[in-house]
Amino acid sequence: MEFFEGTEKLLEIWFTKSESKCTADNDLRKIPRDVLDYILDLVNCKILSSTRTRELDSYVLSESSLFINKQRLLIKTCGTTTLLNSVRPFIEAAFKFCGFDEIEDVFYSRKRFMKPELQKYPHNSFEEEIDYLQELFGGGAAYALGRLNGECWYLYTLNKPVSIDAPDQTLELIMTKLDPEVMKIFTKEVSSSAEEATQKSGIDKIFPNALLDAYLFDPCGYSVNAILPKGHYFTIHITPEESCSYVSFETDAPTTDYPELIQKVLDIFKPGQFVLTFFANDDSIGRYFTKKQYKLKGFDYDTFQETNVKNYNVTYAHYTKKPI
Amino acid sequence: MEFFEGTEKLLEIWFTKSESKCTADNDLRKIPRDVLDYILDLVNCKILSSTRTRELDSYVLSESSLFINKQRLLIKTCGTTTLLNSVRPFIEAAFKFCGFDEIEDVFYSRKRFMKPELQKYPHNSFEEEIDYLQELFGGGAAYALGRLNGECWYLYTLNKPVSIDAPDQTLELIMTKLDPEVMKIFTKEVSSSAEEATQKSGIDKIFPNALLDAYLFDPCGYSVNAILPKGHYFTIHITPEESCSYVSFETDAPTTDYPELIQKVLDIFKPGQFVLTFFANDDSIGRYFTKKQYKLKGFDYDTFQETNVKNYNVTYAHYTKKPI
Repeated sequence: MEFFEGTEKLLEIWFTKSESKCTADNDLRKIPRDVLDYILDLVNCKILSSTRTRELDSYVLSESSLFINKQRLLIKTCGTTTLLNSVRPFIEAAFKFCGFDEIEDVFYSRKRFMKPELQKYPHNSFEEEIDYLQELFGGGAAYALGRLNGECWYLYTLNKPVSIDAPDQTLELIMTKLDPEVMKIFTKEVSSSAEEATQKSGIDKIFPNALLDAYLFDPCGYSVNAILPKGHYFTIHITPEESCSYVSFETDAPTTDYPELIQKVLDIFKPGQFVLTFFANDDSIGRYFTKKQYKLKGFDYDTFQETNVKNYNVTYAHYTKKPI
Repeated sequence: MEFFEGTEKLLEIWFTKSESKCTADNDLRKIPRDVLDYILDLVNCKILSSTRTRELDSYVLSESSLFINKQRLLIKTCGTTTLLNSVRPFIEAAFKFCGFDEIEDVFYSRKRFMKPELQKYPHNSFEEEIDYLQELFGGGAAYALGRLNGECWYLYTLNKPVSIDAPDQTLELIMTKLDPEVMKIFTKEVSSSAEEATQKSGIDKIFPNALLDAYLFDPCGYSVNAILPKGHYFTIHITPEESCSYVSFETDAPTTDYPELIQKVLDIFKPGQFVLTFFANDDSIGRYFTKKQYKLKGFDYDTFQETNVKNYNVTYAHYTKKPI
């Protein structure tokens, strides 16, 4: 049986200027395309397609996604890609082409791999990743949320007293043991195009006002990047193979009703279990997503953790489908 | 300079019967003293003195403490003791001498060692400890609270849907970088007896109604076990050497004012930093110790984590003294 490591590595880098305010000229989207291609080559992935709005550039990659706005670069790659190889060149490019001279914050996170032994340096273990990042940034804080001997999610971030002060929030649902019938939609056998898979599954109804860029892999697998109003995004990546089925949903869109959004996503993919992570800083509307609201219909959580990380609150929960 | 690993390993085992209710005969205090001595020998420590009340047996050990009541055994050992060697023989003794046939729950925890490289098998790493415990119990959940690359506290417990249902709570303060003037009290040079150190420091005023059993080591170091009304306890262990100063305070006493109790302890020892851990199950009065109350006078926390562990809520916080 084919194995594919759907589990993504996720990196966010926020840039700023140390001495003066950022101007219109300080913009990460000024990094030339050939430089992006060169950096992605170090990660072992490439750009398949791109879309843009005034606020956000979106790239669907051969292994997941890249989003770039004025001051934030967000890259998510799966398989055995070597994402951390991109950190230093991205920083060099941001300093050289965009006039930034300071890193405002860094967030690197991932779920435990299904098969860690298949990963390449520096991704052989979270300890190795911490060492690599500490070598680059010097000061950082690393956490393991969840169970060390079970489902677990790792986070590394700079150890600053305060981080981003604009409202910021990120919801991630990392789903496994998905409904095989739903997963079939994301194969060339069942869907003739990415658009067909998007509509059949109901992904187009999650945020009806989204600008979608979807990709259906051959013979199976699916990615979609979505640009939302005000430069927000969502992105979904699907590994449909039953032996290693994996779906991730991620968005930085603020909403007053996270439980409704989560339920929509769960209703589409019908996972057997999932990890939920939610970041919200002090100014985010996400601060009103209360502990009580994490009780979701049809699922029980066995782990629920809240951690302060600078001015962010990070929630981690692991859910399993209730027996019928 | 002398180094001593004050950091304790802490083990709680709760026993019950699988088929019928526990009777007066099912009592861990029926384990004969020579069996206790034999087991402690495997851990590399020994009993220095003991006290008892109707509800609780207390033993001051050459390396920390042992408390035994009807159904719960609690042992805490520091230095390079091999605490986990006691798990299997304690269980065998509880089954043989006390008529128990089931383990209700197990909690094993410790802070990251100052010098992990000095520890002996199976304490060389938390991974090794997890493996050892999983070998014994088969199903368990392991957590690392705090920062993996900084101050961090490990917990292993059985993975049952529900644990102890009687009200239960444990507060632990693990203090480092302590005031050298205070630490001097716990040396033979300054105090001629354990009683003198107890009074000089103010330890006798934490719970004025406690039955104390204190021990002053030569040339320095101090332990006290205290039995409180209704079979509750507190225990304090002190490594006063400035290069590795360490004080732990632990109690299962319920109180409506944890911040006041914590402040009392901090005022005595004046730590530069400390880790606070607090367990409270659903029936515990400790559930009213609110997040807001964790803001303590004179200290900032850089990590604050709450985790559900079965029907317990576990709080972890790491505090540093505010700059004056």
